[in-house]
Amino acid sequence: MTGFSTATKGVYAIAATPFHPDGRLDQASVDRLTDFYIGCGVDGVTILGVMGEAPKLDAEESLAVARQVVKRAGALPVIVGISAPGFATMRSLAHGVMDLGAAGVMIAPPSTLRTDDQIVGYFRQASEAIGTDIPFVLQDYPLVTGVMMTPEVIRRIVTDNPACRMLKHEDWPGLEKISAIRAMQAEGRLRPLSILCGNGGLFLDFETERGADGAMTGYAFPDMLVDVVSAAHRGDRAAAHDLFDAHLPLLRYEHQQGVGLAVRKYVLMRRGAIASDAQRTPAGRLTEASKREIDFLLTRLACHDSRANAMILAPV
Amino acid sequence: MTGFSTATKGVYAIAATPFHPDGRLDQASVDRLTDFYIGCGVDGVTILGVMGEAPKLDAEESLAVARQVVKRAGALPVIVGISAPGFATMRSLAHGVMDLGAAGVMIAPPSTLRTDDQIVGYFRQASEAIGTDIPFVLQDYPLVTGVMMTPEVIRRIVTDNPACRMLKHEDWPGLEKISAIRAMQAEGRLRPLSILCGNGGLFLDFETERGADGAMTGYAFPDMLVDVVSAAHRGDRAAAHDLFDAHLPLLRYEHQQGVGLAVRKYVLMRRGAIASDAQRTPAGRLTEASKREIDFLLTRLACHDSRANAMILAPV
Amino acid sequence: MTGFSTATKGVYAIAATPFHPDGRLDQASVDRLTDFYIGCGVDGVTILGVMGEAPKLDAEESLAVARQVVKRAGALPVIVGISAPGFATMRSLAHGVMDLGAAGVMIAPPSTLRTDDQIVGYFRQASEAIGTDIPFVLQDYPLVTGVMMTPEVIRRIVTDNPACRMLKHEDWPGLEKISAIRAMQAEGRLRPLSILCGNGGLFLDFETERGADGAMTGYAFPDMLVDVVSAAHRGDRAAAHDLFDAHLPLLRYEHQQGVGLAVRKYVLMRRGAIASDAQRTPAGRLTEASKREIDFLLTRLACHDSRANAMILAPV
Amino acid sequence: MTGFSTATKGVYAIAATPFHPDGRLDQASVDRLTDFYIGCGVDGVTILGVMGEAPKLDAEESLAVARQVVKRAGALPVIVGISAPGFATMRSLAHGVMDLGAAGVMIAPPSTLRTDDQIVGYFRQASEAIGTDIPFVLQDYPLVTGVMMTPEVIRRIVTDNPACRMLKHEDWPGLEKISAIRAMQAEGRLRPLSILCGNGGLFLDFETERGADGAMTGYAFPDMLVDVVSAAHRGDRAAAHDLFDAHLPLLRYEHQQGVGLAVRKYVLMRRGAIASDAQRTPAGRLTEASKREIDFLLTRLACHDSRANAMILAPV
Repeated sequence: MTGFSTATKGVYAIAATPFHPDGRLDQASVDRLTDFYIGCGVDGVTILGVMGEAPKLDAEESLAVARQVVKRAGALPVIVGISAPGFATMRSLAHGVMDLGAAGVMIAPPSTLRTDDQIVGYFRQASEAIGTDIPFVLQDYPLVTGVMMTPEVIRRIVTDNPACRMLKHEDWPGLEKISAIRAMQAEGRLRPLSILCGNGGLFLDFETERGADGAMTGYAFPDMLVDVVSAAHRGDRAAAHDLFDAHLPLLRYEHQQGVGLAVRKYVLMRRGAIASDAQRTPAGRLTEASKREIDFLLTRLACHDSRANAMILAPV
Repeated sequence: MTGFSTATKGVYAIAATPFHPDGRLDQASVDRLTDFYIGCGVDGVTILGVMGEAPKLDAEESLAVARQVVKRAGALPVIVGISAPGFATMRSLAHGVMDLGAAGVMIAPPSTLRTDDQIVGYFRQASEAIGTDIPFVLQDYPLVTGVMMTPEVIRRIVTDNPACRMLKHEDWPGLEKISAIRAMQAEGRLRPLSILCGNGGLFLDFETERGADGAMTGYAFPDMLVDVVSAAHRGDRAAAHDLFDAHLPLLRYEHQQGVGLAVRKYVLMRRGAIASDAQRTPAGRLTEASKREIDFLLTRLACHDSRANAMILAPV
Repeated sequence: MTGFSTATKGVYAIAATPFHPDGRLDQASVDRLTDFYIGCGVDGVTILGVMGEAPKLDAEESLAVARQVVKRAGALPVIVGISAPGFATMRSLAHGVMDLGAAGVMIAPPSTLRTDDQIVGYFRQASEAIGTDIPFVLQDYPLVTGVMMTPEVIRRIVTDNPACRMLKHEDWPGLEKISAIRAMQAEGRLRPLSILCGNGGLFLDFETERGADGAMTGYAFPDMLVDVVSAAHRGDRAAAHDLFDAHLPLLRYEHQQGVGLAVRKYVLMRRGAIASDAQRTPAGRLTEASKREIDFLLTRLACHDSRANAMILAPV
Repeated sequence: MTGFSTATKGVYAIAATPFHPDGRLDQASVDRLTDFYIGCGVDGVTILGVMGEAPKLDAEESLAVARQVVKRAGALPVIVGISAPGFATMRSLAHGVMDLGAAGVMIAPPSTLRTDDQIVGYFRQASEAIGTDIPFVLQDYPLVTGVMMTPEVIRRIVTDNPACRMLKHEDWPGLEKISAIRAMQAEGRLRPLSILCGNGGLFLDFETERGADGAMTGYAFPDMLVDVVSAAHRGDRAAAHDLFDAHLPLLRYEHQQGVGLAVRKYVLMRRGAIASDAQRTPAGRLTEASKREIDFLLTRLACHDSRANAMILAPV
């Protein structure tokens, strides 16, 4: 099955979009990267998010990427980011990717929204515009969008829109928000909702303990995310934190606005998941000093996690 | 010829995009509105700007509107807004409309830009991305974009990019900026550049006196804009101000963020230029109270400008 | 009586703070300006707002200005802006000026507030911090604060805080907000509340018709504001609009963010109300070109309003 | 000597301001906390910053805190944050604290600044306003201020203002900015300047390696900061990173906008440095769940750093 539901648990990888150094889509790496994510044991893949350089693809390219990933992913659900300045573009892309077999779409609010009612109204209009039969993920990422949603606003959106099945939680700080939403559900004020956490995974250790169902983020070690979420869900707290803490220095380094994607693509390239760490313009570029710092962090990580070790042996 | 140049003077109408009440494009009104602008004596038309509800059209619809307007406008130059979150979409649209016969494109900076270098760098990358042979208008509208460009930043952009032929000036307050740019040219520090003023025309009376070449805005009486610019350019200051002041109460009313487009489309409908004032979602709607206020302003305007008079007789 | 109430009607002048060219407070002009406002027939004066350069006074100077104005204003109520980054400063200033005989204080929300609950919570905490016995004006000025309050949020603030007696309405566009608040009251959902409009007076003609009680703004012809509000309240619509429209070209010119205060002080100086148009740093300065434009507008205004005429004869 | 210079190295603690649960200043804890910082081996203390709840103190209280800390700190330099909405308040506070024996002041730009010239102009005016003989720290914290300064803008500010002796670097991401500034100095384009890093210390491990002179932040283990900077400066890279990494899970937890100060005060209280973790309103509060998470992090930290161990034995 390629669906996702309000009961979805586990890890969805936010997929990078691989390019050749000259800016063309690297189709071979699209397959290789999809295979890599599958090999990491993820439960789904999310494409065409901000970290997938979605705005740098035109309409045709977006569909081409979606087609290829959906096909390669097979039974693995694929969610597609469709955020755009207007509903017409969102509807076109949503219909296009659902026809291709996507499991659903993801929508972030535009940065112009301010009041509670504006935010709630936007998602009602957006769901109507794309079709209320298309399942969607509500993306809550104030650091990037500037839009702040209270738990009550999220409750209203979820209640208004049956098609909303999942919250991509990446508020920061955001632990109390998870607790507040889970409390609403315990009180019967809110229907079931899957919560996967983004924000680079920076608080994943505690987010799972607060009630999150897992992660949806693009950290270049999705296999670590899978293991941390799995340990947390089986109650092995020490294992979850030990593994998470071992990765935290690198994860924190990747969690830098602007340049973070460059770090991520560089590590994915070093792990052999993509052929080049090229980004389309505009892009934050890594200096040699930054690359040396990442290599240093990988070397240190290798003492704790053999996956880093294996990677270091791979040719750069 | 359908070109525009650094010497362009006069009035470019920011065109509304006509919709049927059910949201479909109103193609008959696209022609009617284009004819209306020609009848008003404008020197060009700009389509797919923010006030043309560009983000509410998908890629195909954008091209369809451009094709129809360019064809109907005949010898009149048509400029097309291509601002988008990423260069790929901008390049696709720019190439598409230039192939159709557009005179050039217009680019506003994304709201994430802050430093001088970021702004300058953005326009260099944008011009390279769409092709440096495509003439473009630099849109400077801080109230909407949040991006503030000093005269020096504009000088750098214009100097960097030979394809930049015109400034759509809509900074507010902005009179000193026009003077500063013209002073740079007088000092030989800046090459020729057409300056057309937007911002709803709220300071057009003085902008022409400071050295602007005219207006590029969507006020529902483009014929007034044409007359004001014409009077200013022939040195008839009293005539320019008298006509401008007669329109100022309505112009000020139309110059309301969010609801302004509803006012504009309502007046265009009342003038018979479009069949319906419908907007696509999301849209600011006019209440009955607002419509009565606009009607009141039109009645008062009719005492000063017979064009308003003629319109009032038209069937609503 | 020096109070203001939920039934207050008329015009409150937002007072400028007069400085000598060297930056010292100009105490003689403080008296002269207060007399000028009284002579204009205003119903109250508001000091230490943004346009009163409040942040450029230290704590002692703020109290000194308040002391002098309250004393000179006699029976005329004086409201004092106390907005500050923290409650301690607000409390100190509020207590200080109430002890001096101020009628109340005015509070604008800090620009960091986003969600409805944050805004409502802020005003509850602010009122508690300064003392719930101190009457306050709720300032709603999104263009400057970035904080957007729905009518429902205003209802919650007014209902929460018995000390809130007045709304300084300067949302833009804002006509529907006045109608919405008045409708809430008609439905019995909101207690009485005075609404005085700011935003430079740019929509005062219609604001009074929508139910506003008058104006609280600093336009340099407060006597015009008094006459417009008076005409509107006695139902003489034509007189109100005719006078308003005659002033609109100048009023619009004064309504420029940043440089607007320089325009205002220049006209006040030309009217003889203050000795110098000096501002403390940082300040938007008028160029010679701007001064000529203002003089031109005053000359044109004199054809419609003899008050402008009288002023022009005054020595500059 | 109580001065700081362009050659200052080491760690300045951003001091919390201790309150009693009822909101009064806790003077005993002011002394105790100052002693704690001295005991941690810091090279200076910075008071009345954002994390010192400066906006929640009125003018008198600010001076009282400064007086007490300066006296208790003895030979240790004390820097005082003076950022305020206007220069008059800044000047008053600056003169007041310098008279008390402060080593200098710290200035952050107001959030309204946008263009390079506005930022440069602000600091020139600010230094003139407070007096060009008062040494100041330039605070560069875009995440909080919204103001983005390029290395070139920093170069202009430092060059313009001889009184600027230090950069509080807390841009994020910000490693390249340190390298860029140091490169300017190597090229002879910029005079000497101390760089201490804030931003909660989140990248301190690499910041020192990029050329920073140390840290100026409020992490509740200033003794760790001292050891990390010391290890880095003596070239013991492994020791610096090992210690830093051991603290990173807690440091990351403290580095949460809004609630971070509550975390910090809670840990300072657990370490016995202050009597209560009370904050004045408005304040982010810790839930019981959060406290348990912090305690858990402290327990884990104790395995790596005996200082955490010692603290856990202290009575709560």
